[in-house]
Amino acid sequence: MPELTFILGGARSGKSAHAECLMEGLPGPWCYIATAQALDDEMRERIGRHQQQRVGEWYTVEAPLELAAALRSVPDGQPVLIDCLTLWLTNHMLAGNDLTAEAAQLLDVLREPRGVWIVVSNEVGQGIVPDNALARRFRDEAGRLHQRVAAIADNVLFMVAGIPLKVK
Amino acid sequence: MPELTFILGGARSGKSAHAECLMEGLPGPWCYIATAQALDDEMRERIGRHQQQRVGEWYTVEAPLELAAALRSVPDGQPVLIDCLTLWLTNHMLAGNDLTAEAAQLLDVLREPRGVWIVVSNEVGQGIVPDNALARRFRDEAGRLHQRVAAIADNVLFMVAGIPLKVK
Amino acid sequence: MPELTFILGGARSGKSAHAECLMEGLPGPWCYIATAQALDDEMRERIGRHQQQRVGEWYTVEAPLELAAALRSVPDGQPVLIDCLTLWLTNHMLAGNDLTAEAAQLLDVLREPRGVWIVVSNEVGQGIVPDNALARRFRDEAGRLHQRVAAIADNVLFMVAGIPLKVK
Repeated sequence: MPELTFILGGARSGKSAHAECLMEGLPGPWCYIATAQALDDEMRERIGRHQQQRVGEWYTVEAPLELAAALRSVPDGQPVLIDCLTLWLTNHMLAGNDLTAEAAQLLDVLREPRGVWIVVSNEVGQGIVPDNALARRFRDEAGRLHQRVAAIADNVLFMVAGIPLKVK
Repeated sequence: MPELTFILGGARSGKSAHAECLMEGLPGPWCYIATAQALDDEMRERIGRHQQQRVGEWYTVEAPLELAAALRSVPDGQPVLIDCLTLWLTNHMLAGNDLTAEAAQLLDVLREPRGVWIVVSNEVGQGIVPDNALARRFRDEAGRLHQRVAAIADNVLFMVAGIPLKVK
Repeated sequence: MPELTFILGGARSGKSAHAECLMEGLPGPWCYIATAQALDDEMRERIGRHQQQRVGEWYTVEAPLELAAALRSVPDGQPVLIDCLTLWLTNHMLAGNDLTAEAAQLLDVLREPRGVWIVVSNEVGQGIVPDNALARRFRDEAGRLHQRVAAIADNVLFMVAGIPLKVK
């Protein structure tokens, strides 16, 4: 049965691991949509480590920007893990794209999942107000996007130290 | 029935929207106590956007500092939304006022709500320890104030991506 | 009955106070394992204030680094409060020690509590990604450690404005 699950959590809160665990409980193949871009060594190392942890029936689609299109191309009924929204948002901000239009497009697709679709994102709004305006804008945009995804999701999980807390 | 509700959440977690939604479920008029000061363009723009979203029986009282007095002047039985505590605290810190005395005064009034009173505040303590001493002091003061308000509140809600999680 | 409780929360979220309250509900004496080091005035002041709040049957063991050894030396059946993991991790990072080895050692001891053991730690991963690489590494290491402690804990509490939210 198609449904949308939104997994939100802080850094290293076990979001991806929990999402992968949910995916592997379903019949494969499992589509991993990666929004990360290997622009520097730190990111390359993170991406590599994550890839090594996914074995079996996983296949990866890279979609740093064209997330809505990537989702449209996934076969009906196939489980999908989108990891993660905050990086997708960062990529669009750095590219100077129209975030309102991009978010609208993405939400259109997420509103009608064609399988079990899991969206992972980082909570970034619970620290001190950042010094620089770009970071403030980013956390505003991220927070608004999270609210909109949560509003249309069937399930919302908030990760605390690797443990999923069901908030919806 | 008079009661105090405390809504805590990160930036753009949907605190104000949820509070306004709760208010509008009650008979008006609804008193909005704004602690924000329009000191720069970014704040002016935020305040303006928020005001445009509130229509109908809302009226606004500005209380960047004198929050206890503003609450005392609200008619009995009227719903009140205080938005938000963290800005009020910021204003007092910047003014160099005695935070202990100010908090004591505020808590005295909040302890005896004369209607449905809703207090909104920002969670700021879940990031990395800030570099500068002022930010560290601010998050300490905010955290302590939040604990004291939560202790006397009838309801405490923690917002996660626009969804209220009832913690008390 | 021996059990491990993990209390996670932001700055000034009431973690230590709640842990002390849980401890004082048990028969004493109560062992307080402090990981804080009084390296500057701010820390000295914090440590002093915390000590003054603990009276009665409390005794303090200082273990800025050798936490596993300190736990092994606690008498069977005695309640223990470890306050806090994030400072212990900071101390090992600053000392340039092997965090993987240190964490493994600590987890070995925590896996077999010999009384009611309470571990307190700071959530640091829910703000904006920090600018500097050391802070990023720290929040990664803290997040991973929190997940591992939570996985073996009998109870996991997430503190929100002084109110414990049971997540496990």
